[in-house]
Amino acid sequence: MKIALAQLNYHVGNFEQNTNKIIQSIRKAKQSGCDLIVFSELAICGYPPRDFLEFADFIDRCYQSASEIALECHQIAAILGMPVKNNLGKGKALFNSAAFLCDGKIQSFHNKSLLPNYDIFDEYRYFEPDYNSQILEYKGHRIALTICEDLWNIGEEQLYPYSPMETLIVQQPDLMINIAASPFNVNQAETRKQILKKNVEKYRMPLFYVNHAGAQTELIFDGGSMALNANGEIVSELNYFEEDFRIVDTNNLLVSKTEAIISSRTERIHDALVLGIKDYFSKLGFTKAILGLSGGIDSAVVLVIAARALGCENVKALLLPSEFSSQHSIDDAVKLAENLGVSYEIIKIENVFAGFGETLSPFFKDMPFDVTEENLQARIRAVLLMAFSNKFGNVLLNTSNKSEVAVGYGTLYGDMCGGLSVIGDLYKTQVYELAHFINKDAEIIPLNSIIKPPSAELRPDQKDSDSLPEYEILDAILYNYIELRKGPRELLSMGFDEAVVSKTLRLVNMNEYKRHQTAPILRISSKAFGMGRRMPIVGKYLS
Amino acid sequence: MKIALAQLNYHVGNFEQNTNKIIQSIRKAKQSGCDLIVFSELAICGYPPRDFLEFADFIDRCYQSASEIALECHQIAAILGMPVKNNLGKGKALFNSAAFLCDGKIQSFHNKSLLPNYDIFDEYRYFEPDYNSQILEYKGHRIALTICEDLWNIGEEQLYPYSPMETLIVQQPDLMINIAASPFNVNQAETRKQILKKNVEKYRMPLFYVNHAGAQTELIFDGGSMALNANGEIVSELNYFEEDFRIVDTNNLLVSKTEAIISSRTERIHDALVLGIKDYFSKLGFTKAILGLSGGIDSAVVLVIAARALGCENVKALLLPSEFSSQHSIDDAVKLAENLGVSYEIIKIENVFAGFGETLSPFFKDMPFDVTEENLQARIRAVLLMAFSNKFGNVLLNTSNKSEVAVGYGTLYGDMCGGLSVIGDLYKTQVYELAHFINKDAEIIPLNSIIKPPSAELRPDQKDSDSLPEYEILDAILYNYIELRKGPRELLSMGFDEAVVSKTLRLVNMNEYKRHQTAPILRISSKAFGMGRRMPIVGKYLS
Repeated sequence: MKIALAQLNYHVGNFEQNTNKIIQSIRKAKQSGCDLIVFSELAICGYPPRDFLEFADFIDRCYQSASEIALECHQIAAILGMPVKNNLGKGKALFNSAAFLCDGKIQSFHNKSLLPNYDIFDEYRYFEPDYNSQILEYKGHRIALTICEDLWNIGEEQLYPYSPMETLIVQQPDLMINIAASPFNVNQAETRKQILKKNVEKYRMPLFYVNHAGAQTELIFDGGSMALNANGEIVSELNYFEEDFRIVDTNNLLVSKTEAIISSRTERIHDALVLGIKDYFSKLGFTKAILGLSGGIDSAVVLVIAARALGCENVKALLLPSEFSSQHSIDDAVKLAENLGVSYEIIKIENVFAGFGETLSPFFKDMPFDVTEENLQARIRAVLLMAFSNKFGNVLLNTSNKSEVAVGYGTLYGDMCGGLSVIGDLYKTQVYELAHFINKDAEIIPLNSIIKPPSAELRPDQKDSDSLPEYEILDAILYNYIELRKGPRELLSMGFDEAVVSKTLRLVNMNEYKRHQTAPILRISSKAFGMGRRMPIVGKYLS
Repeated sequence: MKIALAQLNYHVGNFEQNTNKIIQSIRKAKQSGCDLIVFSELAICGYPPRDFLEFADFIDRCYQSASEIALECHQIAAILGMPVKNNLGKGKALFNSAAFLCDGKIQSFHNKSLLPNYDIFDEYRYFEPDYNSQILEYKGHRIALTICEDLWNIGEEQLYPYSPMETLIVQQPDLMINIAASPFNVNQAETRKQILKKNVEKYRMPLFYVNHAGAQTELIFDGGSMALNANGEIVSELNYFEEDFRIVDTNNLLVSKTEAIISSRTERIHDALVLGIKDYFSKLGFTKAILGLSGGIDSAVVLVIAARALGCENVKALLLPSEFSSQHSIDDAVKLAENLGVSYEIIKIENVFAGFGETLSPFFKDMPFDVTEENLQARIRAVLLMAFSNKFGNVLLNTSNKSEVAVGYGTLYGDMCGGLSVIGDLYKTQVYELAHFINKDAEIIPLNSIIKPPSAELRPDQKDSDSLPEYEILDAILYNYIELRKGPRELLSMGFDEAVVSKTLRLVNMNEYKRHQTAPILRISSKAFGMGRRMPIVGKYLS
């Protein structure tokens, strides 16, 4: 049996485009003599559809698309992810289903049993688990058809008391198909392979796996669909970070010479961020970006990534020096913009800053310069950037990194503004790694931006290290607290200084209110700020 | 048996305070000769603890508090909500439990079966459902002890395939206790009573119900704990919107003369918002608020509510007229501030606006005045308000209403700023009702602010109705779309104009990116913007 694996970039709720893409792939597979084509989880509406699933109209459109697609399924069958109504009269309104399309009709639904409901996942919000898994019979094969999480309840610590493959295996399948919506994080490709191999090792049959490619706001789906033979060897591995289409013959599951090489962690992050920007803009119908370029490393990295995602001609940089900006910062920013061929303007904020000072002086009188005036500069910059954004239609990119977002070292409605946060899931130390990666063949980012001590330049001779621990230490504490959920006692036992730990955790927790109002952050870690991390604002814990 | 119902205002993660409150109540109940005291769901850590539950340290502190509290339980027993570790080796790490404390120790755990995971609820994110409900025996009583949602799977459409009372009823209980964390919405008090009465009607025994009182960021818990006798009559009903403590004797479940009167919908909303502001400030350790007072109805209503919550002396109003502001707006704003005795300043934004104009003119050249300049005014106001906020420590209150938040009729980083949105869950038409309610005895809000046509006053002779449908129509469409999830076809069949429907839904969906970056909104409806409504940003559906 020839199986086509269709790894596509869907757009949530864009039924016309998704349906077209699916139909084009079916035609292509049919022309190549395929018996079956497999699409990913909830392909019909895109993933994650979130609360659109609560609208009957949205579900109706899924059914209409499925019927339209089914008409293409003659001399070929398709497996296609879609939401399906629960008509049992009890439980949630929907199932998360794999529809089997054949002979011009939807023949059967195979519903998901295990509904991820952690981190960025909310599936039990919408779907009822279905524990009655049934084999799919087609062309002499007995297919164990499962959906993403269904295969992940394997190994030592099991998140669910039940595994659907245990029900399916007694029905004597001879191959497994899993359709997925498995978002990228920097370790996910390896983890995913391990999980798939574990299933093959346990159930001893080939496995065909189809994931999404493409970004949906903060979530980046990295593709990497694959076919494994019964020995757990990868027969075919689809490209990462792009659409791909591959045909595998179940009668010839020999290992090809090399499996696709997973690139370095930093390269993967780079590629993920480029895709994240590209899809955010294209799916919202925007082409042009703008950002504030300070001469520091964060905005430098964002500018490079943005230029690669959108083209240099579509990115605009504003240099917005205040009286506290150093000349080398301006020079470094100019040099970078010129290296990239990105258009830039230099706009001094001193006059506007003085204007605010005059307006406020009757009220502030002789009160000393403090964080108010620091924030004022950051907010004036945001107002100027947003004015350009409104006038010329450029979307503002946010350039905050995860370390500063974590501890609240940023100005709300100032440098925390932007439609999309590009590096908000990279700790400062990871931003350095990415800068070095960008510079691996040539000095694109001026070396000075990388080596100088980080500074917000909002008061004379300011350094980040005046307010924060050194980034190596800060990032290590943050990683353990945020990604690994280590508490204060565990952190102390790891050797971190008590005062530093206590200050850091307090800053993280008390700045939840700021993060609540920031842009979506492209997610590259296993625990990003945003939809995957839900914290109380008025909470009083370690704060 | 004498049972104390302890309806307390907990603070998420504030173990010291919560434990103290619980212990004080136990002592009070003991002094009154009670046999049992009942606290609400997850009382020990506050509700909702959200992802704090993922920290082992947080759970350890819950256990420590419970042990400390148990030491008070001699000659009295307590039922107390807390998270409990799942030691089964499969499933989620925790149960949402009711601990039974007696003789100085935790005697047993009674875990929640039905985990709400819709709207603002995420319980399956953290908890494993437990279907092995066991009767609690105490002082000759057989108690069917359940937790909130456990009693809600009753009636026609059942969200869960299982109801724990069906397991408990065969164990022959003689009374029911339900501990809850049931947040306010304008219809919730009636719905709650109906659900509790249905359970009594079905299972034919008394029911003791304990809810939280107090707000946690956007969620307002309105109390209304109660005891019902086996006839479904309310024997005792605790106060709404405040802490309360009441003792009920199971040997005397006669109906008192009157049950507490549920106030009018608008009065309830008023009281909920006052509590919402009060708790947001007190739980974050703030005392002072600031807001921009335009002379329009929205900021007028927010000012009154804020003054009632925090005291007039703790609220500051800034009047920030531009060249497009009308004199009557300034007069109305001044009059209101003086009516309330709230301190205010008038700060013209013209000079700063001109300063931005000069700075931007080399780039904008002769391009016409457009939304850029409108937004600029709103953003200058935000910068001034935030400068006061930073300098004097006043938290900025947001004054946007639900209608404008829905259709994006507001400036991001401008009038959409603020630490807390007070009326962001009230449609414009509800803001009018609230204004009339506030003025029921005297003209606190100048009548002119209520009767004049709404305007943003960001360009000459601007009216809301230039850009938006009349609010009566707009709000009706929004309510049906947002609260009731009606799709376009359903709205047309209800008689709304096709062009208006299509424009409205498009505006709602395309402005998701703005709502993503706004303050938490005090929730008074069954579907508020915020944690209870999760929509894709790059989605393409009805947009």
